[in-house]
Amino acid sequence: MGKVFVIAQGGGPTAVINQTVAGAALEARRRHPDSKVLGTRHGVRGLRKGDFIDLSALSEADLRRFADTPNAGLGSTRDKPDDKYCEEALAQLRKVGANAFIYIGGNDTAGTQQILDRSAGGNIAFIHAPKTVDNDLVENDHTPGYISAAWFVAGAFLSLDLDFRAMPGIYAGIVMGRHAGFLTAAGAAWRAREEDGPHLVYVPEHGFSMKQLIYEVGAVREKYGRCIIAMSEGVLGEDGRPLLESLRETIERDAHGNIQLAGGDLGVAIAGALSTAFPKVRVRVDTFGYLPRAYPGMADATDRQEAFDCGVFAVATAEEGSCSVGLQFDGTRTLPRRVALGAVAGKTRLMPPDFMNSDGNNVAAAGIAYLQRLLPPRPPILPLI
Amino acid sequence: MGKVFVIAQGGGPTAVINQTVAGAALEARRRHPDSKVLGTRHGVRGLRKGDFIDLSALSEADLRRFADTPNAGLGSTRDKPDDKYCEEALAQLRKVGANAFIYIGGNDTAGTQQILDRSAGGNIAFIHAPKTVDNDLVENDHTPGYISAAWFVAGAFLSLDLDFRAMPGIYAGIVMGRHAGFLTAAGAAWRAREEDGPHLVYVPEHGFSMKQLIYEVGAVREKYGRCIIAMSEGVLGEDGRPLLESLRETIERDAHGNIQLAGGDLGVAIAGALSTAFPKVRVRVDTFGYLPRAYPGMADATDRQEAFDCGVFAVATAEEGSCSVGLQFDGTRTLPRRVALGAVAGKTRLMPPDFMNSDGNNVAAAGIAYLQRLLPPRPPILPLI
Repeated sequence: MGKVFVIAQGGGPTAVINQTVAGAALEARRRHPDSKVLGTRHGVRGLRKGDFIDLSALSEADLRRFADTPNAGLGSTRDKPDDKYCEEALAQLRKVGANAFIYIGGNDTAGTQQILDRSAGGNIAFIHAPKTVDNDLVENDHTPGYISAAWFVAGAFLSLDLDFRAMPGIYAGIVMGRHAGFLTAAGAAWRAREEDGPHLVYVPEHGFSMKQLIYEVGAVREKYGRCIIAMSEGVLGEDGRPLLESLRETIERDAHGNIQLAGGDLGVAIAGALSTAFPKVRVRVDTFGYLPRAYPGMADATDRQEAFDCGVFAVATAEEGSCSVGLQFDGTRTLPRRVALGAVAGKTRLMPPDFMNSDGNNVAAAGIAYLQRLLPPRPPILPLI
Repeated sequence: MGKVFVIAQGGGPTAVINQTVAGAALEARRRHPDSKVLGTRHGVRGLRKGDFIDLSALSEADLRRFADTPNAGLGSTRDKPDDKYCEEALAQLRKVGANAFIYIGGNDTAGTQQILDRSAGGNIAFIHAPKTVDNDLVENDHTPGYISAAWFVAGAFLSLDLDFRAMPGIYAGIVMGRHAGFLTAAGAAWRAREEDGPHLVYVPEHGFSMKQLIYEVGAVREKYGRCIIAMSEGVLGEDGRPLLESLRETIERDAHGNIQLAGGDLGVAIAGALSTAFPKVRVRVDTFGYLPRAYPGMADATDRQEAFDCGVFAVATAEEGSCSVGLQFDGTRTLPRRVALGAVAGKTRLMPPDFMNSDGNNVAAAGIAYLQRLLPPRPPILPLI
């Protein structure tokens, strides 16, 4: 009997997560023509129930079309297996005679692979393939999915800066990122002149306060007549706790109507604080939320290829046993490498300190250089004001 | 001395508003090689001060590059001239010997042209060129800027439906549109199967209540396991007033902290109501806000051409006197026509009643047909769940 590869997707979606599935499936077909590749529906949740999709039955054309489909096309989950869950998942892997289980996701997913690997006892290779728009995996220069999402964010802030150049005011775009500011920082990738926005960039790696915000926005407005702010959902308040959490508590304690507040609280609080401090000024705050994660037509070519290559690499090195695939940069090229599951599982990579300026309110030269190395070039625009 | 055309941009930005400027400038150059085309900085605000940009000095290549720049590249304004303002603006037009003033914008901009035309007394042609992502101008099948913005919204909901197919839950995307639901309705353009989202579409043209929302979301979840909602910022509450306004008052009255609420209130209230009604369910609400208006790289080819053609047409027919340019559809082609300024100024076009279903909670066949006539085709995706 030929080799059997089982593959699954965990956590949030990206524009290129299906590329990794297609890369694995096509590499298995190429290396082992008699192999079988089974996708599980909804990650380990489907694995536990033996809910498989036979990817070997798909034509190469369909696999390529699947690869170009944004979001997790096999379905995803945030389940974290306990002992019993693990045993059930392993029983299904044994039942189909799996040689390797490839699980695509972030550090939680790497953690699941570590747990499964420990329980399995060596007969199956547990391979974690990287994926996260947050770009917060250690042992990776950047992660598949990040470039495409960052591209979306860069384009958004390029446009919003032009918008407020045309009609002055204050704009804040709230970008996903609970711990790491990489995605928010991408808003600054395409700045060309000193006056270009975003003029203020707030990320979870640095302190933040409403008082600081008002002061800094005032200073920027004085200089440029407008102020564009990129802010992570995960910015911390003065007490070191996520501001979003503190705000939620405050608002829920104070409000007595039947209106409950959640989700966009941060944007609402920021809009309120800015409108109060700068009355009569045009203020707008939007929550980009899920939009940058897997926007159709915005899968970057490099990102697509790298995600595909991670799937190829997972299959190509499966015989060497369990590992996490890390996308590493050697100064010239970005290539997948085998790293220990334990080196990645549960760990969060933050932005290197030199990516931000010393005030912690903007992206510094090292950060811009990193973003420009990864992202497509700025579109050739020519505003006349 | 050759002819003099003055051109300006008013109101919110679009992805193609600069196409109309370029179309006018290039047509003036072609028809009248000795003509002069002056752009005003920030609409009538710059006109009043004589703040001009000489577009005749730009090469065709630069004008084409300007055309492809998203957002109002001459600057914009929402100023509504009073008598004195009018006189100052007219004085500047006379000073440069203007034969025509072309003002690109929505129904407010048409109103400004009507006021200027009345005050000027016939020596200058005041031409309103259409532009709005809201698509709410009468005498137009659709308006330049709408197709590109609608394309963005269609792509967003395609992706979000895939996202929640991969991991179940409830999602609401709040889309701009105070009076007309065209842009929100565009979220439904690419639905292919009955189970595809958005499953609920709420627009200002129809009644809305939180109670109705909770009931309808419950019914959709029972059927499909997920629920994707597209909602206009301008949905009306049970009292017939914009819900956003009522909510703002409620929250401001109830909250005693230093947090003032504004802007994203609607999204926050919707998220709160859904989380309360469906505890333990994944709920997310995002405010798309300004993102769809002029996203770089998402200027639709038809939209670009039509916006350009409106500028060409304005110059080509300027000798016939003041008018509004209306993009009209004859059943086969969409072509610009001259219509009276008074027919457009201050009027708001709503969605035709048959664009929505009888429950007022989803786009009906006529609406989908309209959207599919305008938008690019759905991308060829292949999710496997």
